[in-house]
Amino acid sequence: MNVHDLPTPALVIDRDLLHHNLRVMSAARPGAALRPHVKAHKCTALAAEQARGGHSSFTCATTREVLGMATAGLGDDLLLANEVVHPDLLGALAAAQDTARITLAVDSPATVEAAARAGLREVLVDVEVGLPRCGCRVEDAGRIADLARARGMEVRGVMGYEGHLMMDEDRAHQAAEVQLCVDRLLRAYHDVGGEVVSAGGTGTYQFHDRVSEVQAGSYALMDSDYARLGLPFEQACWVLGTVVSTNGQWAVADVGLKALAMDHGNPTIDAGTGGGSGGGGGDVWFFSDEHVTFAPRAAFPIVGERIRIVPAHIDPTMAKHEVAWVVRGDEVLEQWAVDLRGW
Amino acid sequence: MNVHDLPTPALVIDRDLLHHNLRVMSAARPGAALRPHVKAHKCTALAAEQARGGHSSFTCATTREVLGMATAGLGDDLLLANEVVHPDLLGALAAAQDTARITLAVDSPATVEAAARAGLREVLVDVEVGLPRCGCRVEDAGRIADLARARGMEVRGVMGYEGHLMMDEDRAHQAAEVQLCVDRLLRAYHDVGGEVVSAGGTGTYQFHDRVSEVQAGSYALMDSDYARLGLPFEQACWVLGTVVSTNGQWAVADVGLKALAMDHGNPTIDAGTGGGSGGGGGDVWFFSDEHVTFAPRAAFPIVGERIRIVPAHIDPTMAKHEVAWVVRGDEVLEQWAVDLRGW
Repeated sequence: MNVHDLPTPALVIDRDLLHHNLRVMSAARPGAALRPHVKAHKCTALAAEQARGGHSSFTCATTREVLGMATAGLGDDLLLANEVVHPDLLGALAAAQDTARITLAVDSPATVEAAARAGLREVLVDVEVGLPRCGCRVEDAGRIADLARARGMEVRGVMGYEGHLMMDEDRAHQAAEVQLCVDRLLRAYHDVGGEVVSAGGTGTYQFHDRVSEVQAGSYALMDSDYARLGLPFEQACWVLGTVVSTNGQWAVADVGLKALAMDHGNPTIDAGTGGGSGGGGGDVWFFSDEHVTFAPRAAFPIVGERIRIVPAHIDPTMAKHEVAWVVRGDEVLEQWAVDLRGW
Repeated sequence: MNVHDLPTPALVIDRDLLHHNLRVMSAARPGAALRPHVKAHKCTALAAEQARGGHSSFTCATTREVLGMATAGLGDDLLLANEVVHPDLLGALAAAQDTARITLAVDSPATVEAAARAGLREVLVDVEVGLPRCGCRVEDAGRIADLARARGMEVRGVMGYEGHLMMDEDRAHQAAEVQLCVDRLLRAYHDVGGEVVSAGGTGTYQFHDRVSEVQAGSYALMDSDYARLGLPFEQACWVLGTVVSTNGQWAVADVGLKALAMDHGNPTIDAGTGGGSGGGGGDVWFFSDEHVTFAPRAAFPIVGERIRIVPAHIDPTMAKHEVAWVVRGDEVLEQWAVDLRGW
């Protein structure tokens, strides 16, 4: 099939660019030094590509992601880097321990107690290193690890996600700030023990020579927000749209905000890629539920022409699609299910 | 089941408040005077409630919505108020004409030609009345209708959506501007003919005594953006979350931007509804993929407490969930599939 025959909106992944990104990251952080985060793509077929690149440990954000990875045979070492307290969800995780190694983040006596009651075997202490989200205080980490061990669970180490630094375009400042976060994480690790010190993401992976693993995810497909950092990864994913209306003042394509995440601002319309006169790209006026209204930069497209739209934030964009189409040039090679959606 | 036993994030619909909203709208615009828009809820079970209220014609935004409504036996009169040009999608619509009455919006010779080629039987001319999106110019409407009739299709009338006026909080100004849009639409209708003049939405339905039908959708469940208009509808839908981490400075619940739309700004944390100390509501600091970080307004919640979060934009929020839980008070009455997701 040709990419231009796909009904739209269509989520498209360029296989060569994806493989480029995977190779670059695997060279920088081979094997267990990278714990790819599946929340960025929610796709076991893509995770399988990461596994073929030598990574057998993965990071997950939801129970569904853990269970889906286990079912797909990718359960060698799954870290659920998130706090879970609902008995049903914890019970499902505990049951999946028969087929997968599962490690759950805990950051409080309550989360330790919930995990222990459900029969989770392994946990890791989530430490707040500057991002106001989950994670215990550094000085509480040892006590939480002791509680977990007293309840019979193995404590594998610590994690601390410096998400507040991820998009810092002053890379020198970013590098220095990351070290302060790692200092905090290592102080917690001193009190916790174990073999895992997990941190980082696509924006900071280059500054993490003092942790055992990095949890990057967005590097595989990228988005326009991460592109601002000048990282060595290519934009490997976009949403293909069709121009459905045009009037000489503006044009409208059938890709709206139900098909693209809006939390990092407007997605962008790529130049030189849509074929036909629409290939000049466009300036986005606004997105509505099912449409983007834009001003073409070159000649006005005709109805039926394709445009390609680059997401500003890849993770929630993937979560909006049921399938991704894997292409090389205009050839559609494969259809991948985005099978880890939901929670 | 009790609502507090639901795994979270959970999309919850209050049945009594929903029915209140449906009754108020059906009283204002009974029967065919309302063509409820299913894009706002993407749920055939909810559409069936609207049908029980006397409405047998519906508005859809995607091919999937049309096909799903037809399959659910709600296909008496389905308007796809959107332009479609892909042969596969048009072919699926044409095939569904055996079990449903389907009317497709057209706004150009190209969309007329695509519809005719696929075998669509009925169309309606989409007219641009001020919102820069789809729709032909008023002066082109008659020519497009003639083209459609020349290609053997029935032309049912016109539609024109004044989406740019929907959120105008100066209601007198809004009412006056709506009349100018209707003036334009009626000029087009003069040249097009047919029996349908379709316009409007939840924000403007009170000002539409010169059209045959209004396409409102959000009124059924509402959101915090529409609430600013002081409409006679109650907030009937929210996302239930669980506090998973808290430290005396902020609290974190397990409802992130993958479970709530962000295009109309931050959702809000409701006061007085979560049970326990979290019932005081909270000030949202930020949403990330799986979390909301907030400052509780009253006592700090404990881990495991529930909060409820009101979406700022209902349509794309519904599109993020597989199921909605229908409740009365704390009792879960039913589970509805959000079965019209996708495109």
